[in-house]
Amino acid sequence: MPRQIRMSEFPEARPPREVWTFTEDPVSEVQDDEVSVRVDWVSVDPGMHGWISTKPSYMPPVQPGEVMRAFGVGEVVESRSSRFTPGDWVTGFLGLQTHGIYRDRHIRKIYPELASPELFLSGLGMTGYTAYFGMMDIGRPVQGETVVVSAASGAVGSVAVQLAKQTGARIIGIAGGQEKCAYLKDVLQLDGVVDYKAGRLDEQLLALTPDGVDLYFDNVGGDILDLLLTRMNYKGRIVVCGGISQYGEMTPSKGPQNLMRVVTHSLKMQGFTMKDYMSRVPEALEVLISGWKDGSLIFRQHILDGLDHFPDAYEMLFAGRNNGKLLIKV
Amino acid sequence: MPRQIRMSEFPEARPPREVWTFTEDPVSEVQDDEVSVRVDWVSVDPGMHGWISTKPSYMPPVQPGEVMRAFGVGEVVESRSSRFTPGDWVTGFLGLQTHGIYRDRHIRKIYPELASPELFLSGLGMTGYTAYFGMMDIGRPVQGETVVVSAASGAVGSVAVQLAKQTGARIIGIAGGQEKCAYLKDVLQLDGVVDYKAGRLDEQLLALTPDGVDLYFDNVGGDILDLLLTRMNYKGRIVVCGGISQYGEMTPSKGPQNLMRVVTHSLKMQGFTMKDYMSRVPEALEVLISGWKDGSLIFRQHILDGLDHFPDAYEMLFAGRNNGKLLIKV
Repeated sequence: MPRQIRMSEFPEARPPREVWTFTEDPVSEVQDDEVSVRVDWVSVDPGMHGWISTKPSYMPPVQPGEVMRAFGVGEVVESRSSRFTPGDWVTGFLGLQTHGIYRDRHIRKIYPELASPELFLSGLGMTGYTAYFGMMDIGRPVQGETVVVSAASGAVGSVAVQLAKQTGARIIGIAGGQEKCAYLKDVLQLDGVVDYKAGRLDEQLLALTPDGVDLYFDNVGGDILDLLLTRMNYKGRIVVCGGISQYGEMTPSKGPQNLMRVVTHSLKMQGFTMKDYMSRVPEALEVLISGWKDGSLIFRQHILDGLDHFPDAYEMLFAGRNNGKLLIKV
Repeated sequence: MPRQIRMSEFPEARPPREVWTFTEDPVSEVQDDEVSVRVDWVSVDPGMHGWISTKPSYMPPVQPGEVMRAFGVGEVVESRSSRFTPGDWVTGFLGLQTHGIYRDRHIRKIYPELASPELFLSGLGMTGYTAYFGMMDIGRPVQGETVVVSAASGAVGSVAVQLAKQTGARIIGIAGGQEKCAYLKDVLQLDGVVDYKAGRLDEQLLALTPDGVDLYFDNVGGDILDLLLTRMNYKGRIVVCGGISQYGEMTPSKGPQNLMRVVTHSLKMQGFTMKDYMSRVPEALEVLISGWKDGSLIFRQHILDGLDHFPDAYEMLFAGRNNGKLLIKV
């Protein structure tokens, strides 16, 4: 029987486990312009926090009782659409379920002959596109500049630092814990790494950025953004990609106290969502695939086996305990 | 005897009156490449707050015992520079004093045959340039958009709203008190005015911006910036021109809690200082002079008579009690 994970009610804070309801409901029949898909992989994303919040955001929230929204990849098993035939591999919001029926215009093909399907949920999927457009289209690092990336070992951050490094900029990563920092230093070969769990963040950052910071790629918000505001050079740029430190609580977030620096240092802060860039996905995909093929881009994945692990995975993500893009093999 | 106002020590909070010391010191002798100037007008600016703070900023602070920094206009009375002759009118950081000696490259000519000299401290000076570049080069309002300006009746705000209105955008001004709001509504003919001293700001703003806000020109920071973050449309722009609400205290400022909106709504926040634009002053001056001549731009000035009024003027500025650009006739 197909299995699903549904959101039973809007959580008021970091969702307790009771929010997730496991169901075994039959899948409805395929209608015209629809396909039936066996879901093989789903992705656990920081954005999920916003999808189960009633706060206005870039997309409407999941409603209580609905299958939890999630990116996924899977194989078409039945089609009543001219766009897909059984055996095609597809991606999109497939949801936390083993099988689903989707409108053909809500999903798109992926090409397992180019790369293993789950990569289209990590470095070759939204994660990779977010890193690519955020760093290369908004941030635009230049040779010789100092670039700082927070959550640098995370799914988006680890791709962003690698792309930035190829421009010849000096890259400083911020991460928490020895394992993550060793990965950034030894495997991704960043120019400097700040371990926010080891000693004073401000002193470590100061020592690694004696000439200030030209570009800050912010994956966390909160205190780290506040600190970086004091380190930015005149005319510096801040790409605001997320605020995972603020996701845990649904109470009002803490705002940066040093925002006046935006005026005195002529800073530009820019946020974005992938919605702005969907038409340019092929450009990102080309860069990411070729980097992955020639080994110049590494996409680390943290894989859990079985849909049942989703509640653990969700907690792991917001506690920062995953190493690399968090995926569930359904 | 020439008179000066000096800053006696760095204040720790909003400067008490004892910070200002009145002196009567002779002016030194004019050296090569210097001119002696009789200072006729000085300008009282929000930026002064930063100039007497030890916090790193876009220019070094005034040192204890030095004549307080201020923009001024005056007439050259003696010259040992090939660039100026007695009778020329000049502007620059002339300081709070009746007479001063300046290096020729630190001042520049103004043209009293075009407009009365004090206008080069208000609409035809830094104030006007700041409004022009902030609104027209960074903000770039477009016909049909909704533009909100805080401190809209202030020196920069009142020029910014008039420039924006000429683009055909819908302009909503925020100001405090009946007199200021009446000025914005009746004289500058804005499309809507929010009086933050009369009733709930959020409700007034919501009623006047049913379709959200495309561009917010922020002169105040603090709670009003935080509120506007919740009203911005997707891909909205915020021009950060100042944070006068945060100037009063030198304790850490309050940061906006809704900064995550920058991500979810794909917002761009940009700060600037006039340093970025000095090479483009002629462009601004042309627009501002022609608007002033044909009556399409009004520059309101609040004039106090005599240097002795500076401590009052400074308090008046940060209490928002001035109506228009605050100037002192020396």
